[in-house]
Formats: sequence, structure tokens, C-alpha cells
Amino acid sequence: MPQLRQDPTTKEWVIIAAERSKRPHELKRIEPSIEKPPYKKDCPFCPGNEYLTPHETLAYRSSGPADSKGWWVRVVPNKFPALSPEGSLERKEEKGFFRMMDGVGIHEVVIGSPIHNQLFPLMDDKQVEEVLLAYRERYLAIREDPRIKLIIIFKNHGQAAGTSLEHTHSQLVGTAVVPSNIRKKLEEAARYYDDHGRCVYCDSIQEELTFGKRIVMNNEKFVVLQPFASRRPFETWIIPKDHQASFGLISMDDSKTFARVLKETLLKLHSKLNDPPYNYVIHTAPIKDEWEDYYHWHLQIIPRLTTAAGFEMGSGIFINVAFPEETAQFLRQE
Amino acid sequence: MPQLRQDPTTKEWVIIAAERSKRPHELKRIEPSIEKPPYKKDCPFCPGNEYLTPHETLAYRSSGPADSKGWWVRVVPNKFPALSPEGSLERKEEKGFFRMMDGVGIHEVVIGSPIHNQLFPLMDDKQVEEVLLAYRERYLAIREDPRIKLIIIFKNHGQAAGTSLEHTHSQLVGTAVVPSNIRKKLEEAARYYDDHGRCVYCDSIQEELTFGKRIVMNNEKFVVLQPFASRRPFETWIIPKDHQASFGLISMDDSKTFARVLKETLLKLHSKLNDPPYNYVIHTAPIKDEWEDYYHWHLQIIPRLTTAAGFEMGSGIFINVAFPEETAQFLRQE
Repeated sequence: MPQLRQDPTTKEWVIIAAERSKRPHELKRIEPSIEKPPYKKDCPFCPGNEYLTPHETLAYRSSGPADSKGWWVRVVPNKFPALSPEGSLERKEEKGFFRMMDGVGIHEVVIGSPIHNQLFPLMDDKQVEEVLLAYRERYLAIREDPRIKLIIIFKNHGQAAGTSLEHTHSQLVGTAVVPSNIRKKLEEAARYYDDHGRCVYCDSIQEELTFGKRIVMNNEKFVVLQPFASRRPFETWIIPKDHQASFGLISMDDSKTFARVLKETLLKLHSKLNDPPYNYVIHTAPIKDEWEDYYHWHLQIIPRLTTAAGFEMGSGIFINVAFPEETAQFLRQE
Repeated sequence: MPQLRQDPTTKEWVIIAAERSKRPHELKRIEPSIEKPPYKKDCPFCPGNEYLTPHETLAYRSSGPADSKGWWVRVVPNKFPALSPEGSLERKEEKGFFRMMDGVGIHEVVIGSPIHNQLFPLMDDKQVEEVLLAYRERYLAIREDPRIKLIIIFKNHGQAAGTSLEHTHSQLVGTAVVPSNIRKKLEEAARYYDDHGRCVYCDSIQEELTFGKRIVMNNEKFVVLQPFASRRPFETWIIPKDHQASFGLISMDDSKTFARVLKETLLKLHSKLNDPPYNYVIHTAPIKDEWEDYYHWHLQIIPRLTTAAGFEMGSGIFINVAFPEETAQFLRQE
């Protein structure tokens, strides 16, 4: 019989479709990997091509001027931004009925390696640490812009995950509005806090650790789990154990631990599922809520192994063909 | 400069990304169509193979027993249902913290033609009418089950839209919970009604007709438009002009008109975009709200020409690379 499970942090239902369920290994990507070169002459993210991007906002290099070679992590404004720094925050109306505003915001690209064909989970620990430190440094800089309400950090890997650029990169977007689904997450978390006096994410971590079957990895600082009401096969969350509403509050030390945990998790997915397409997103509090007791930042990894269809679009309820208890066990196996 | 537009019916923001925008014709599907046979021996939806499906709940045939050949539309329970008629509505708890329930519900498949390779927009008017009458008839039957709170009718066409079955079909799902995104749509519509004493969908129709640029088609009974805050290129809505909260209230006559409008709309998309993958979903009121003054059923068509990525997952804000004013004009052209 299918199961309906409710995410305690959002109150959203998901269907775990036992009747159409797949064993974890059946979800492995089957297309062969395409060999890619380590350098591509026309790639705007390859070293030597710095002139193809807007001027960098951050780069880690031992010496040399801005926008020159020699960096190992480089952050640049997106050449085709979804949001742009100019414009007004004023709401405008079309014909008095429809509401619109300028697409004000920040949209940056974090180039995670100078090597064109480097895959994120196969980079060495130090390099992943540096990418995460770049996230942190740019977060702290962008949050100073008083127009920015929320900063979303995410990565798209593979065509089925919505990217056409091969060269490893991730993105930061600062928005001048708080999206309604983030507001809903905050509201649900606040409601739980009102009832219990505790953070729902902190309580989830405790429950999951006691239950154990959905845990992928666990150390002193972070827990990696596949949530009770996971929406897609192999959906994986990385949650800091210490309560912290915003990624912007992470210490340098914890950021390095986070990098290693993220890398190890992605490496498990990479090797067990044959380089699946995936997205990851850091869910963090809006800037004005960075110190809230009830919200708790976390990173969600969504491998794109199945396609959301009409039912998901109409209902918002995801149909998951895998049990997180089984996929977590599959990932835990050496 | 990019634009942020707000959907008046949901208050969700979308980004219309002018800097990365595409001309309508650039969004055309480029893969060549694969020739498919009119009959497939192992297809459970082909005539003669009725024994491969569960017993039909409805079929239109001139004569002959149930589950025999000779039908032109056939409705059967889904063999691998996402929700099933058995089970209890009681909420259960896992470890006192996580909430779950049996996946109670109805999940049926509407086989839209006996011909394996028939495409929905290329069927004759009469056949499309019959499919829509089957939707209506099954809606009215399923709504009698007191456990069912909402009925979602949808179609997935093409692999990128989440289907692997070639033979034309659509689906009905009756759920025993009201999904939270539907509840949110109702709440926003109720709030508008409180302010204005009018239905926000009725007002949208008026505004769109006056503005004109996003209208695709318009007759006495239905308007076809690409909404102001469309989330994806060529997102298209069909809305009945008369106020009606539930698809279940549609008359036989209006259902036939609706069929012709749906067919014509899909045919425009089919020919202008080279048989794109798409989903359509009928958004209708929960059964207890069928007579509400503030909600208004409509059908949404979402061609799957672009892929939602990490930003959409993290923010719920869609980035649309096309202006609905331009895509609507492109569809209007003969």
C-alpha cells in the first residue's frame, strides 16, 4: 500500500509509492559518461579566458592582478543575470491589477576549479574547502547590500538538472523579495517553536539519529540524512548539529568540516549512482532572521533521477518511487 | 533589465529574465519525431490487450461486454497506483514525531484512443469531446466517495514531461488530503474576494481581455491566455468565462466546447513547437468548496521546454526566459 508521509518542517505531504517502487540500484544512471577535455579554448570559465566574463568580485590566487590567470576559485557576476544590481524596489502596476518590480538582485557564479573537466565530488578536500569559503565570503559581502533580503546558494550539475555549462560552477543569488515558499518554511518552523519551545530541525536531527535508518553519515558537527518525507529518490540533507539559522553565521572551521562532509556525500552519490545529474541548494534564513531560534540552515541535494509530472504540478505532492530507509542504507554500504 | 512579476492568484513571484531571453521560435523542440506504430502487441492500452489492465471503471463502446475490444475511450484503475482505495484515513506516527497515513485515494488512467500512435492534438473533435466527457463522468463518480477531498486530472506527454508510455492517456487522482499548495491558492483567492467582493480569476480574465497581448484564443465560453506571471515559456491557461469553482459543475455542452478549445490550443503548441513534451492539469476546487464564489477552475498547460534547476528548488521562484506577450503573439499568428 502506498504511504503518505508529512514533512515535519513544511507540513507538505509526499507519496511513497510502494507499488511502483524501485530498488536503489535500479535508479543508477545508465548513460555512459562523455569524456571531456581538461581545457576548452572557448569556455568562459577556463583560465586565460577571464576576459570573457564580467570583472571578478572575488578570486583566490597567490599573486597576479584581478581577472588574470593563476586563480583556483573565481567568483564573477553572471553574464546573463536572472537579477541585476540596478533598478528600483518600488512595486509597479500594469493596468492597476498586475504587480511587478524591477528584477533587482545579485547573481554571481562561483567557478569551482580552473580545470574544465573537474567534477566537484572528485576534487581534493582543500579545493572543496576553498569553494565553500568563497560561498561564505561572498554571502557576507552581499548581505551588506540593504536591498537584499535572502541569499540562495546552489549548484546545478548535468543537463537533466538544468545546466548546459560543463565547467564546474555554482551560483549565488541575492533576492530583494522573500520567496513565498521560504516564508512558509519559516512560518511552519515558528509554529513548531511556539508549540514546543524547540527548533523543528534540531528535533528532527535527534529523531533521525535515534531511528538511525535514514542516516547516511554523522560526525560531531553535521548529520547527513535522507528525510522521512523525501520527495525524490536519494534526496539528501546535510544539517549542522548546532542550532544556527543562517549559513552566514558559519565559522571558518565549521565551513571546512562542512566542505568535507559535502564532498564525501556527493562522492557517495557519484560512485553509487554513476555521476547522476543533481542540484544542491543551501536553505538559509532571510537576512533579517539570521539569529532566529526557530529556523535552521541546511543543504538539500536533489539527484534528478525521475521527472516531476502533471500530478506534482497540480498538487505540489511529490510521488517518490524509493524508500529513504533503503536508499540511505544503499549509500552507507562500502 | 530582468522583471519580477507577481501572479495575482497565488502572489508567487516569477523572474522574466530579459537578459537571457529567447525568441519564441528558438524554443521549438529540435529532436526529430520518432515514428511509432498504430498498434503494439504488448501495449496494455491497445485494443485486444484489455486483460493486461485492471477491470475498467468506464468505457465508451457501442456494444460488447466490459474489458472487451470495440471501445473508443476506456478508463481503468492504474495498475501501479500512487494511491489506492484501501486503507485508513487515520494519521499514524512514526516514533511520535513523524506523521504518516495510508496512501488512500483513487488513481485511474483514461485511455484516450484505441490507436497506439494517436496524438491528442491530432485527434478529431468528437474524440476529444469523448475524452473530456469521460473526465467529467469519472469526476462525478469519484466525488461520491466521502474519503476523497480533491480530484486532480492531468496528462503527461513525452519523456521530458515524466511519462514513458507512448499510448495517449491521461490520469485522474482523487486524494484524501488537500495538498497545501491548493489550500494556499484557495486562501489567496479568498483574500482577494474579501477585499473586492469579486473572484480574482474573473477579474484576471477581464484585465487580460482588455490588455489583449497575452490572449491566445477567445470565444463565448472560454479564454485561452498566457498569464502575466507565467513560470515557463508558453505556459498557457484555459479559463471558463462563467464563474465556476469546480470542473465537476461543467455542463455537457460546455464540456464539448472546452474539448474543442483544448484541442485547438494543443494543436497550436504542437505545430508551432514541433510536438513539445507537456503536462496539463485541471486546477479545480476541493469537493467541499465546489460552490465557492472565490475560486475558479482552469486548465494549465506547461510545455517542458526548459528545466527547473537549483534556484527554482531553493526559492520557488521560476526563471522564465520568454515573455508571455511574445509567445502568445507567436501562437496567434496563422
